[in-house]
Amino acid sequence: MEHDLDNTMVLLARTPAALDALLRDLPESWTSQSEGGESWSAFDVVGHLIHGERTDWMARARMILQFGETKTFVPFDRRAQFRESEGKSLGQLLDAFARLRSENLRELRALNLQPADFERRGRHPALGRVTLSQLLATWVVHDLTHLHQISRIMAYQYREAVGPWSKYLGVLQCAGHSAP
Amino acid sequence: MEHDLDNTMVLLARTPAALDALLRDLPESWTSQSEGGESWSAFDVVGHLIHGERTDWMARARMILQFGETKTFVPFDRRAQFRESEGKSLGQLLDAFARLRSENLRELRALNLQPADFERRGRHPALGRVTLSQLLATWVVHDLTHLHQISRIMAYQYREAVGPWSKYLGVLQCAGHSAP
Repeated sequence: MEHDLDNTMVLLARTPAALDALLRDLPESWTSQSEGGESWSAFDVVGHLIHGERTDWMARARMILQFGETKTFVPFDRRAQFRESEGKSLGQLLDAFARLRSENLRELRALNLQPADFERRGRHPALGRVTLSQLLATWVVHDLTHLHQISRIMAYQYREAVGPWSKYLGVLQCAGHSAP
Repeated sequence: MEHDLDNTMVLLARTPAALDALLRDLPESWTSQSEGGESWSAFDVVGHLIHGERTDWMARARMILQFGETKTFVPFDRRAQFRESEGKSLGQLLDAFARLRSENLRELRALNLQPADFERRGRHPALGRVTLSQLLATWVVHDLTHLHQISRIMAYQYREAVGPWSKYLGVLQCAGHSAP
């Protein structure tokens, strides 16, 4: 399917409520555990999504519309949440994510984008030339990547408890596929 | 983490609401598309979860408690949803899943399982000897496998729309890892 603003917005609007229904008030044995080493917990992922709402998606959309390819996007800080989430509860993070997402969608709607706008270009620090429609589609798939990741992180906590069923459970075979 | 009945039940109770928040009333371009070929759509996955509630998890738990290893579980029909979901809307499936899950959790609670019960054994048609605690942990991870799958199916619909960002988006690199 090609990028479609209505399809993008309707899915972006769902993510906070889906994560809320899944995570709020769960015991920390589900939400604060990672997949080991430097990997993230569900709590860390929600913090990362908040940082994206604050600094990435709409900031880059505005930059494309105002400056085109003449300004390069600020690189995304993939460790910001370790600083910004400190001392907060998961419930506070879920509230912040819902509020920021809602504000961003309101701002996106107010831009009143026209078909030609979606082909406008910006400059990504590593990927080079990208379009506004690619940025908006990526916002959606970024949500889905992290929902995929949260399912995997939580499944990992029961990787031994499932015993021989492990080989039938696809999520336990998933290697993460993270970007380098 | 070892299997823990409270941790199992609290997560099993979340899945219907999380899927509802994510999927209800989404356009069919998100919910009825698959990853091509014989792969499943989000609609198919919800039907599969319903079939599990009807025929698998609690039926197997009862069989372990009543017959131990003397009776082999009925194999799970992984294509039942194509028959059973026919003519239904996704909203109807989400309602049915929530209702059945809630009934099953009520029944599970009513069993008043004691520590020794979790080590009771049953016989899986392919895996052989399994314990009740492994079955219950698998119920949770099966939910998470399908949440992981639904995220991937929906992300797949925008796999080209994201353009060069594709390589940063882990969910687009996920090969599914399904059981044979």
